[in-house]
Amino acid sequence: MQADIVVEILNYVGIVAFALSGALKAGEKDMDIFGFAVLGFSTALAGGIIRDVLLGRVPPVNIAYLPYPLTALLTSIVAFYLYPYVKRFKDLVLYPDAVGLGAFAAIGADIAASYCQNMENCWLTVMMISSLTAAGGGVVRDILSNEVPVILRREIYATAAALGGLVYILSLPLGRGVAMLVTIVVVTSLRLVSLVKGWELPRLKKHQV
Amino acid sequence: MQADIVVEILNYVGIVAFALSGALKAGEKDMDIFGFAVLGFSTALAGGIIRDVLLGRVPPVNIAYLPYPLTALLTSIVAFYLYPYVKRFKDLVLYPDAVGLGAFAAIGADIAASYCQNMENCWLTVMMISSLTAAGGGVVRDILSNEVPVILRREIYATAAALGGLVYILSLPLGRGVAMLVTIVVVTSLRLVSLVKGWELPRLKKHQV
Amino acid sequence: MQADIVVEILNYVGIVAFALSGALKAGEKDMDIFGFAVLGFSTALAGGIIRDVLLGRVPPVNIAYLPYPLTALLTSIVAFYLYPYVKRFKDLVLYPDAVGLGAFAAIGADIAASYCQNMENCWLTVMMISSLTAAGGGVVRDILSNEVPVILRREIYATAAALGGLVYILSLPLGRGVAMLVTIVVVTSLRLVSLVKGWELPRLKKHQV
Repeated sequence: MQADIVVEILNYVGIVAFALSGALKAGEKDMDIFGFAVLGFSTALAGGIIRDVLLGRVPPVNIAYLPYPLTALLTSIVAFYLYPYVKRFKDLVLYPDAVGLGAFAAIGADIAASYCQNMENCWLTVMMISSLTAAGGGVVRDILSNEVPVILRREIYATAAALGGLVYILSLPLGRGVAMLVTIVVVTSLRLVSLVKGWELPRLKKHQV
Repeated sequence: MQADIVVEILNYVGIVAFALSGALKAGEKDMDIFGFAVLGFSTALAGGIIRDVLLGRVPPVNIAYLPYPLTALLTSIVAFYLYPYVKRFKDLVLYPDAVGLGAFAAIGADIAASYCQNMENCWLTVMMISSLTAAGGGVVRDILSNEVPVILRREIYATAAALGGLVYILSLPLGRGVAMLVTIVVVTSLRLVSLVKGWELPRLKKHQV
Repeated sequence: MQADIVVEILNYVGIVAFALSGALKAGEKDMDIFGFAVLGFSTALAGGIIRDVLLGRVPPVNIAYLPYPLTALLTSIVAFYLYPYVKRFKDLVLYPDAVGLGAFAAIGADIAASYCQNMENCWLTVMMISSLTAAGGGVVRDILSNEVPVILRREIYATAAALGGLVYILSLPLGRGVAMLVTIVVVTSLRLVSLVKGWELPRLKKHQV
């Protein structure tokens, strides 16, 4: 299927961008080259690993299918040796990162939906797995860095991926391939617009805390 | 079975109370509404999710059975909008929280025991799964909040749930339903008495540290 | 097989040494006796538990086979009551800890390799599982202690275990038993030499950060 090839290419864009985001955090935390590898790997692949474990797909594809971990690890190691350049252009990484967010959300939704007998009973499961696939790696990265995960505090990120799960379900009548592409476009656009506009989710007012 | 209905009602009491405890922590950490949802969900359901993954029950019931995640997420979102009230009455949450501790411990013990051929070889497994089901969510909440899990430092909490596993095994000859009810009564009572009396577990003396 | 007995003895050396390392961290963090038990258990057994979950071996042997958790928990509780002595001799624990690192890496590699149809496609998986089995528990210990995992920042530790996975694969033509023993000798020696010599992995130069 043609759509599958597009999704797979965008998946690699996501793995590279997410691994760079992990490597940048490793540098910020003064980690060694092994720390770069672990943070790059985790940011790119831990969300999908947890998804597969929850659905009983073991060993997880992100561990067992050589090209995925190899891409994440090589990206992290290259980022270690070229750290000053990666750091200088880190704002540019936000664009492929948004593409990866969309691709991971679409892949997560597609896999979760394949376990559903009845979409009426599992829309929430699909949304959660979609969000977990796309944003779970960033949570692991932040926990390993001893920080409160950034997605719990600000920015439209995991929420965009969760909405992607809903978009996937609603567009599934058009076919799996189309549904994935629509999901990617919606999630990536929502993320990029929210970045540009500085949109954030509701928070408590100061006097409530 | 009548006992099952009682246990299920107490299970929902636990989900709501635990989700409130997650939401309170999210507020304390200045998280946005998505952070409230994740912390409420995790505190209520992560212990059971990890239990199911460890026992090969996938997808975990806390993800796949719509009413559980829906209850946890709706509770968290309501707590966000009513935060000042939830915060004012947070000491009251400790009572349903103790009920939830008992219910989760009993459910965990019951599930773990169903995997045992021979109770002599798996009393420790049942105790561990019981404690994990009841207290694992709070550990995930604290890790996501970048804190040392409170159950590792003070209070009779996870220990009461572990003892619940033993109580379940010992009362199993009376039937599964009775064993679960006895477990709930013992764990909840132990937790409440320890709260009132200020009981704590042994710690190192200052000069030993 | 004779080699199996040797590996199993060294496995217990590792469980005890790793549990002591967890207990020492629990003491440093002013935890109660339950915290000692959880940190000792996690440091010794969490790596193997995550390995088993990833490979679909559930319930994990470190939970289901009574002697393993019992050894880890009893060690942790003894360490609580004899804390001043354990603390005084903590540098000595580094030697059995290095033996445990080798044993855990060899066991992890042996289990991971048994899932491979084709070693050319899964050398990286074996290396990752080997490193995870040996060093994953320490990561869980540090996360529960609210610290950046030490293996991400300095010392040759998880890297030695990952190399052990490669050593196992290369020596597998000599038979599984021999391959495990060779792996243990190489990993343990590499760890000990790097400790004595103060070897560390590459890090960013100060001006790059």
